[in-house]
Amino acid sequence: MAKGTVNVGIIGFGTVGSGTAKILLNSKELIRQKTGLDINLKRISDLDITRDRGVKVPDGVLTTSAKDVIYDPDIDIVVELIGGIHPAKDFMLEAISQKKHVVTANKALLATEGRDIFKSADEHGVDVGFEASVAGGIPIIKVLREGLVANSITAIYGIINGTCNYILTKMTNEGAEFSDTLKEAQRLGYAEADPTFDIEGIDTTHKLTILASLAFGIPLSYNKIYREGITHITAQDIAFAGELGYKIKLLAITKITGDSIEMRVHPTMVPNNYLISKIDGVFNAVYVEGDSVGATLYYGRGAGDMPTGSAVVADIIDIAKKIQTNSPPDNFIRSLAKDTYDKKIMDMGDVMSNYYFRFSALDKPGVLSKISGVLGANNISIASVIQKGRQVGGSVPLVMLTHTAREKDVLNALNEINKMPVVSEKTLFIRVEGKVE
Amino acid sequence: MAKGTVNVGIIGFGTVGSGTAKILLNSKELIRQKTGLDINLKRISDLDITRDRGVKVPDGVLTTSAKDVIYDPDIDIVVELIGGIHPAKDFMLEAISQKKHVVTANKALLATEGRDIFKSADEHGVDVGFEASVAGGIPIIKVLREGLVANSITAIYGIINGTCNYILTKMTNEGAEFSDTLKEAQRLGYAEADPTFDIEGIDTTHKLTILASLAFGIPLSYNKIYREGITHITAQDIAFAGELGYKIKLLAITKITGDSIEMRVHPTMVPNNYLISKIDGVFNAVYVEGDSVGATLYYGRGAGDMPTGSAVVADIIDIAKKIQTNSPPDNFIRSLAKDTYDKKIMDMGDVMSNYYFRFSALDKPGVLSKISGVLGANNISIASVIQKGRQVGGSVPLVMLTHTAREKDVLNALNEINKMPVVSEKTLFIRVEGKVE
Repeated sequence: MAKGTVNVGIIGFGTVGSGTAKILLNSKELIRQKTGLDINLKRISDLDITRDRGVKVPDGVLTTSAKDVIYDPDIDIVVELIGGIHPAKDFMLEAISQKKHVVTANKALLATEGRDIFKSADEHGVDVGFEASVAGGIPIIKVLREGLVANSITAIYGIINGTCNYILTKMTNEGAEFSDTLKEAQRLGYAEADPTFDIEGIDTTHKLTILASLAFGIPLSYNKIYREGITHITAQDIAFAGELGYKIKLLAITKITGDSIEMRVHPTMVPNNYLISKIDGVFNAVYVEGDSVGATLYYGRGAGDMPTGSAVVADIIDIAKKIQTNSPPDNFIRSLAKDTYDKKIMDMGDVMSNYYFRFSALDKPGVLSKISGVLGANNISIASVIQKGRQVGGSVPLVMLTHTAREKDVLNALNEINKMPVVSEKTLFIRVEGKVE
Repeated sequence: MAKGTVNVGIIGFGTVGSGTAKILLNSKELIRQKTGLDINLKRISDLDITRDRGVKVPDGVLTTSAKDVIYDPDIDIVVELIGGIHPAKDFMLEAISQKKHVVTANKALLATEGRDIFKSADEHGVDVGFEASVAGGIPIIKVLREGLVANSITAIYGIINGTCNYILTKMTNEGAEFSDTLKEAQRLGYAEADPTFDIEGIDTTHKLTILASLAFGIPLSYNKIYREGITHITAQDIAFAGELGYKIKLLAITKITGDSIEMRVHPTMVPNNYLISKIDGVFNAVYVEGDSVGATLYYGRGAGDMPTGSAVVADIIDIAKKIQTNSPPDNFIRSLAKDTYDKKIMDMGDVMSNYYFRFSALDKPGVLSKISGVLGANNISIASVIQKGRQVGGSVPLVMLTHTAREKDVLNALNEINKMPVVSEKTLFIRVEGKVE
């Protein structure tokens, strides 16, 4: 049955909740003009309903009880914006069991326990909107589900954590070290007081989990993704990378290689002439390659009340249209509920990549020969070497770029090299994508 | 009524028709997996049905008569891919009158006579898909209609003609002149034998017509868009722009300024540090700014059989989903059928911009003072001046960047300056967007 008005309830009146409420209240007429839909923000629940969020909410909308949202018989769409696993998951499952459609920005929940959400949604015949869970305002979920639906996706490379990209950009532009830059990012509100989720790549991995499932029709696979953060990246490595024609970015990578799917999150050296190396500051970008469309890229703000609210409201409108026509939930819901793999996930050890190595080696004759001997014995061939400064008897950085090598060969070789008496510190390595032209 | 199979007919088996057919035939199972839909390519019509297009079409699909597509009672969606105004328009209107949904890549038709198409579609209750009409494989139409639906769009800047961007990129990288570069583009198949539509900005203007209508809910306004091509751009201007920190791009610009909408297509100087200045070769990019989402950018291939086919098939799938659920046509159809303006379109003469001027002035004392006097009298203030080389008594280029000035003041000033005896050639000017940091 077509309905005149679609009623929406929001659980969580924080940053994204406020942005969403602002758009729904202030752009009600714009949305009506564009879509013909009347979207009514009926309830907002939050433990704190007194703090000023800069938005005038009509009387009777605010409540301290999520139950008032979930069990309101008039509410068609429940928007979960409290974040975290519990009680967010419980609220969503409760809403779904009430046959409410749900919209969420909660990547941590979807990546780790999303299967339960999608399974329950599939059983209850309701939709789950999660555009806001990856890359904020960039409509990347819609692009993968609809815009590029005719494509077999072959690769995705994403800069999908604004905190890390801000830190790496600042380190690059100012030659600053990681810890100082992190402190400044915290001072400016670009990094949390506890920055672990961002700087250890956990948030990026959550988002890659969702992208990879959509792209390749595989189950949500957070635990199968290789993850490495940016805390070990130094100003020195960024400078060497620059000299070699590269930028260092925290990339979320998933691609088809042979008959397997690679999924990995790690700092990556990307050639200066690649568009994705030019994405600076808190901005996000997702590069998507399809068999028909070829290379595409999507760029915008990955966080913030209004950009993320823009994505939440787009989901609300899509679902509202489907409510009006009694359309079934998106087919991807079922695919995201899957727990069996019909495609192979590549072990990280089998990944083939080029590598950047920075050895801290004693400046003595024969050291280069010893190191390159071990590399050669492990099928790693050297593409170029930089040795800077001389400090006879002391330790100097010795930098190498390799040709394509296998990850497990690299780990074996470095393990052996790190034990050499002439090597004074653990060797730093960074994976390299693409080639400088 | 839900239908098991959605039948598609294609009129026009050229480049895009072949790409579309390839995807529909070769990715039938992929599409079924992703969407649950069974899309059947039932007929393809073309005057030439014998030429090999590199795709194996089942027996009985090809026909030389478009009527076999339009009047096939089983066909749900008619895809028009012959281009040009007639008979493309007639076929589309005929298909619509048969209550067929239509999909097209025909920007020239939509921009100039699209109102008739959308009006008829609205009257017959059918959908019109036109994702492929702007920026090839980039799902920019979906982004404007759905992904950013919660936003009031404030500005769009597009590089949406691959031929012009290829030519300008090559001129920039190689210091080559326009005519030589055009010839090479023609040799490589990046420019047509008659390149007028591309190099005069007509194709870009067609596409901007569609983008502006979607963004601002105004009628299709091809004739209201200011248009200027790239034929007058010289290697010298590109070099001066580079020195000043800019690239020259053919931009499609539409934005809200005050209570008016600006719409213009012209070569534009864009700061080197702006992402859109880094879009090179045949690639397209569209920068879209919304009130909530802020800055976003979408990048990919703007032409070619498979990228454009990817967009056509995405439209087919969207419409097929709606056929399955008896959903009404997109609300934007009605907006694109409009012929009344409820927003003001700014006269080009009222546009405010920064400008680059290259005067060909005699190298005599007092010339700069005379020129700047006229500029000052027309409210144009100078931001910087470059004068290169000395050729006493001869003519030298004198280059200026202005602060913000009004277009009509600029035209008046240059008209006066061009009449000066000390000015030997018509002054070249290029509009400048943004500021070098």
